Amino acid sequence: MTKSVSVVENILGANDRIAEANRQLLDSTKTYAVNFMASPGAGKTSVILRTIDALKDRYRIGGIDGDIATTIDADRMAATGIPAVQINTGGTCHLDAVMVSGALPKLNLDELDMLIIENVGNLICPASFRIGSHLDVLIASVPEGDDKPYKYPKMYRGVSAVLLNKIDMLPYFDFDMDYFRKGVEALNPGLAFFPVSARTGEGFDEYLQWLMEQVDSYLGS
Amino acid sequence: MTKSVSVVENILGANDRIAEANRQLLDSTKTYAVNFMASPGAGKTSVILRTIDALKDRYRIGGIDGDIATTIDADRMAATGIPAVQINTGGTCHLDAVMVSGALPKLNLDELDMLIIENVGNLICPASFRIGSHLDVLIASVPEGDDKPYKYPKMYRGVSAVLLNKIDMLPYFDFDMDYFRKGVEALNPGLAFFPVSARTGEGFDEYLQWLMEQVDSYLGS
Repeated sequence: MTKSVSVVENILGANDRIAEANRQLLDSTKTYAVNFMASPGAGKTSVILRTIDALKDRYRIGGIDGDIATTIDADRMAATGIPAVQINTGGTCHLDAVMVSGALPKLNLDELDMLIIENVGNLICPASFRIGSHLDVLIASVPEGDDKPYKYPKMYRGVSAVLLNKIDMLPYFDFDMDYFRKGVEALNPGLAFFPVSARTGEGFDEYLQWLMEQVDSYLGS
Repeated sequence: MTKSVSVVENILGANDRIAEANRQLLDSTKTYAVNFMASPGAGKTSVILRTIDALKDRYRIGGIDGDIATTIDADRMAATGIPAVQINTGGTCHLDAVMVSGALPKLNLDELDMLIIENVGNLICPASFRIGSHLDVLIASVPEGDDKPYKYPKMYRGVSAVLLNKIDMLPYFDFDMDYFRKGVEALNPGLAFFPVSARTGEGFDEYLQWLMEQVDSYLGS
């Protein structure tokens, strides 16, 4: 038992070192990397596409898309006109720093202000693997239910913001916003929180305002 | 690289042997085990509660509930009046055979015809770990989107049935049923498929009829 714990620690230790190298590479080209994580079907790709659409005239944006199979999402990213790279994890339930370090050289980072990374659809594994991103955002969604912070605490603890997507569906679901918020707040006090709908665009102004503040602050530093 | 693959194979080999032992234990007491898997928020617990409610007068049912944290779902199972055991995986993204072998002795299997196992909310990891169940059921849901079979193929390949939950939400989502079915059929031809709503009960008659046939066939064998 002790042995297997120490193996895990070594793997995570190695991952963290490579994540740090990824971060240094991104900093050397002044590229701000945002890592979007979510359960399958929460709307990661839709939120990302709307984000790219709103910001692509302001920043030079590139994308990395992680999936266990297919290039559906990277194709959708590339269709917005930005350079995009697909990582197929071959079944692995998260991106790790090594995968990202293999993808970074495929983008011309010198010409990017912002890198949007779509992690593998999973509410558990990505929380354990740093990849070198400057900002980690969790996209929750109304149909998933209001109990998810309580049931997947590690993911909620490790992020800088939560977007609650599909709020246009609130009338059709029994979703207790206070219960949800209370769970988030207990795990990650003061966390930035944005209720949005990637379908209607509701809430995007506030979220994008906040996101631009993070990017501008980084680029101006 | 070769080394790490062989480690994974050993772990999975050991897991399979323990899964086989779990199956033998269940067979020795003639207890039919059904393993429900799904993404977070697809409605596993709601489907299971409705299933228990419909079948608990017909079979003696017990439950095992897997979660990375909390006993919310096992508490809900136990509230139906059946014996239920919680497995907290401590962050691990799936149940494995060892965890289940630790939980089985906590139930009086001699007095159970049917064991309902709720796996950890995850569309990737549980597909790789047999636990000894007789039947593996995947619960998809309309809000997740119609592309999930394409993006999470392993999970769809390994199961005996797919329930598509939350069909009462079809009017509010862009969900192409043909596209979804075509993906499922390509991965797992002839798979039992039941569109249901755990909220309204729609589709449960057909699904329960099929499930009872599986259980009866096992118990009568």
